Amino acid sequence: ANPISLITGPCQLESLDHARMMAERIAEACAPTGTKFIFKASYDKANRSSITTQRGLGMEKGLEILGRIKEEFGVPVLTDVHDAAQCAPAAEICDVLQIPAFLCRQTDLLLAAGETGAAINVKKGQFLAPWDMANVAEKIASTGNTRIMLCDRGTSFGYNTLVTDFRGLPIMARTGYPVVFDATHSVQQPGGQGTTSGGQREFAPVLARAACAVGVSALFIETHEDPDNAPSDGPNMIPVDQMGALIKTLRDFDALAKTL
Amino acid sequence: ANPISLITGPCQLESLDHARMMAERIAEACAPTGTKFIFKASYDKANRSSITTQRGLGMEKGLEILGRIKEEFGVPVLTDVHDAAQCAPAAEICDVLQIPAFLCRQTDLLLAAGETGAAINVKKGQFLAPWDMANVAEKIASTGNTRIMLCDRGTSFGYNTLVTDFRGLPIMARTGYPVVFDATHSVQQPGGQGTTSGGQREFAPVLARAACAVGVSALFIETHEDPDNAPSDGPNMIPVDQMGALIKTLRDFDALAKTL
Amino acid sequence: ANPISLITGPCQLESLDHARMMAERIAEACAPTGTKFIFKASYDKANRSSITTQRGLGMEKGLEILGRIKEEFGVPVLTDVHDAAQCAPAAEICDVLQIPAFLCRQTDLLLAAGETGAAINVKKGQFLAPWDMANVAEKIASTGNTRIMLCDRGTSFGYNTLVTDFRGLPIMARTGYPVVFDATHSVQQPGGQGTTSGGQREFAPVLARAACAVGVSALFIETHEDPDNAPSDGPNMIPVDQMGALIKTLRDFDALAKTL
Amino acid sequence: ANPISLITGPCQLESLDHARMMAERIAEACAPTGTKFIFKASYDKANRSSITTQRGLGMEKGLEILGRIKEEFGVPVLTDVHDAAQCAPAAEICDVLQIPAFLCRQTDLLLAAGETGAAINVKKGQFLAPWDMANVAEKIASTGNTRIMLCDRGTSFGYNTLVTDFRGLPIMARTGYPVVFDATHSVQQPGGQGTTSGGQREFAPVLARAACAVGVSALFIETHEDPDNAPSDGPNMIPVDQMGALIKTLRDFDALAKTL
Repeated sequence: ANPISLITGPCQLESLDHARMMAERIAEACAPTGTKFIFKASYDKANRSSITTQRGLGMEKGLEILGRIKEEFGVPVLTDVHDAAQCAPAAEICDVLQIPAFLCRQTDLLLAAGETGAAINVKKGQFLAPWDMANVAEKIASTGNTRIMLCDRGTSFGYNTLVTDFRGLPIMARTGYPVVFDATHSVQQPGGQGTTSGGQREFAPVLARAACAVGVSALFIETHEDPDNAPSDGPNMIPVDQMGALIKTLRDFDALAKTL
Repeated sequence: ANPISLITGPCQLESLDHARMMAERIAEACAPTGTKFIFKASYDKANRSSITTQRGLGMEKGLEILGRIKEEFGVPVLTDVHDAAQCAPAAEICDVLQIPAFLCRQTDLLLAAGETGAAINVKKGQFLAPWDMANVAEKIASTGNTRIMLCDRGTSFGYNTLVTDFRGLPIMARTGYPVVFDATHSVQQPGGQGTTSGGQREFAPVLARAACAVGVSALFIETHEDPDNAPSDGPNMIPVDQMGALIKTLRDFDALAKTL
Repeated sequence: ANPISLITGPCQLESLDHARMMAERIAEACAPTGTKFIFKASYDKANRSSITTQRGLGMEKGLEILGRIKEEFGVPVLTDVHDAAQCAPAAEICDVLQIPAFLCRQTDLLLAAGETGAAINVKKGQFLAPWDMANVAEKIASTGNTRIMLCDRGTSFGYNTLVTDFRGLPIMARTGYPVVFDATHSVQQPGGQGTTSGGQREFAPVLARAACAVGVSALFIETHEDPDNAPSDGPNMIPVDQMGALIKTLRDFDALAKTL
Repeated sequence: ANPISLITGPCQLESLDHARMMAERIAEACAPTGTKFIFKASYDKANRSSITTQRGLGMEKGLEILGRIKEEFGVPVLTDVHDAAQCAPAAEICDVLQIPAFLCRQTDLLLAAGETGAAINVKKGQFLAPWDMANVAEKIASTGNTRIMLCDRGTSFGYNTLVTDFRGLPIMARTGYPVVFDATHSVQQPGGQGTTSGGQREFAPVLARAACAVGVSALFIETHEDPDNAPSDGPNMIPVDQMGALIKTLRDFDALAKTL
């Protein structure tokens, strides 16, 4: 098995300069271990808790920035898509299209994404069991595109709380598709701050280590140079200056797990 | 407070003749108690468990049938919309647009629905707490449209199971918007049959009685002349020949609750 | 079916005078509707959240008070027992022995309680499914004592929260034993205040109405003349001066349900 | 930090010969890595799902066997206690008394166990949040005995299912007491087979690896030479002939985690 790769970047695109700075710092954090990364950023936060929070730069400007990052840094880029019409334009730039968890049962979106031929990272809905993702993958695969990744970002557990069931990773792996663990959103507290979601940043590395010990193909970890002032997901992003050390640790657990 | 009204119909549109037959039988079931109903049917099941199951007649044909029912029976009609572009055409025919539970946080859909001026019935996501619905309603209300109904259809409880927390009804009512209880989907067992969802039809009347005793503005109950052979939601729909007796019972509980 | 009866009283015995006062006020609240009640109080809170909170008067003194209430008011009395050795002495006074939810799987306690011949009210563990209670009842019935009541007091739902699944009432009723709904502990927030449990008193009448509409044999409702200063369960007890009106309402819903 | 130790043995004592054989095979499995173990076995299964299943050898005979194992193998021994009166006699033989999860709030049991001066391994109730265990530990510590271990064995998640929230391990560690992860009961499916609990043995090593990566002081893993025919917990015990390889793997993850 290959070493884990990372899907990482700021949650939300802020500007070309910010994206460049983040890509550079992530590349530096990944270099010592030779860890491959896919640069992730969103051009639109389409399902925020409240109407009063920022949504982002929009698709056109966002894709342009992602295209520049891809070209300048020579890395694959990923963004999330929110309706079928966004898939084709997003796939012209992006190597990976991501299906948000709330939308993982929307057949039209899954088909449109699959039909682009891009790789698809589909998040498990918080309302789904891990074995339910076989049906989700099958919808995408019905387009002939089997470049599918299944990503766990936590499961509803009472109100305003998620829990990660680590049995879910090997269960999803039974599909044969690579499994990704999203350490950032798994420690989200949905709606936990009234009009925004809260989070428990301190547990993201803890759960990421657990995921590596269980065995995954990739980790999804959002990062920012100043999470407390980031436009979204601040409470659960990792400060970028801690990413180098975290990646080294995770690679060690991953290497050990992959000797099994 | 007014007596409860019903949102009812077959889950999925099958044909004009079928819709007519259902509307007629529902009208008969409602007549003895003078219960008002909104005829509900879907033209597209956009988020089914599996790609192998039937999706429906499509928007154009579906809206045409709903228009005929509205005209012939003189009843308001409701359908669910799945992306922003569907809202305006659906609202040309339908009195009420319904936002599916999985989509209740999709800002563009909520805004597009709100902007039509139609009444909006928004289902609480299975992944949301009842108090989180205040933010959802506020997104719609930001369009100036406050004809909003908040509908409970169950909350994730472990895997492949929903639970109804009846505290949620008065909590959602604190928003000032009318609250609807969906007795059909609250007894759904999501993904519980492998490639389709299961259900516990026998508990739909039980939970509907409870909702009336707690206090609601309307009930959502899907019905069919032969649920076991319906194209979707069969395991949790009420046979139409039982609707008359059920409505009578529910009106009695509702009347009692509304003396409090 | 008979009208609902009540299991009611202060959570914790405070003194003979207090018990008398409570019994008198409860009797007054029940009189207008002819509602039968079982006087409930605990002599020992054996499983409180924290060591720093009050446990009660102890078994000897507690049973003496319960004996006086039984004699003076001519009502059956109930108390909860916490180990096998307490069952026989408690049954000398009490008509009903109650098995606490945490202890509902302790075989020795169930057998010792059953062997007294007293009626047994066993609470469903917060960690059990309603269908699991058939095994619990069978343990008691193995003693030859089938005077068993099964009582729902909520199910674990995330952390520090309970939810009532009203499907559980008819599911437990399939055993053939009478089903009781505990409106007081179902709105408890276990551990929700650090060293004590919190509660949502305002929802106790709401859920009690729902239970009556679903159909139960009895309701369990703790009450106090000053809940905010009661030694335990204050946040979820009903003020005794509201009990008369509540009982009347619940009897109306019960009567309606029992016409079905 | 010291390397992890193990709490291990058959779930239920069967005979002196069986206990000897198990202790010998466990000692062999632990030897290559120098892993210390505490021999665990129960003399009474006091809270089984159903009255029809086996309870065990009883206290007197059970403690005698544990005493022999302790003497012959020179290892500490652990057993679980079910009421206050069992604590003193059990502590005459056993180095560690274990408080079952259902009983972790029973004040008398916690105090009696604490007063023996033995080490106490207390399982987190399936109905408790990890932070609720601080109050539990404080009850024991009020006796002056602070030789306390806090053990996670899963949390209620819907019906007949447990989930492990790995955030719970560092949360419980904030108390300052060593934290144990019970890999055997965390994969139990309570009541999942009608009159007995089911289990998912294949996930015990998976979750144990995750726990080591997160960081724990000890692991609790039940084992048997023939789990499918063991008198209890068969579905979730590890075959003893797999223990050597498992221990080696877990020690590697533990060593890596303890470099952090």
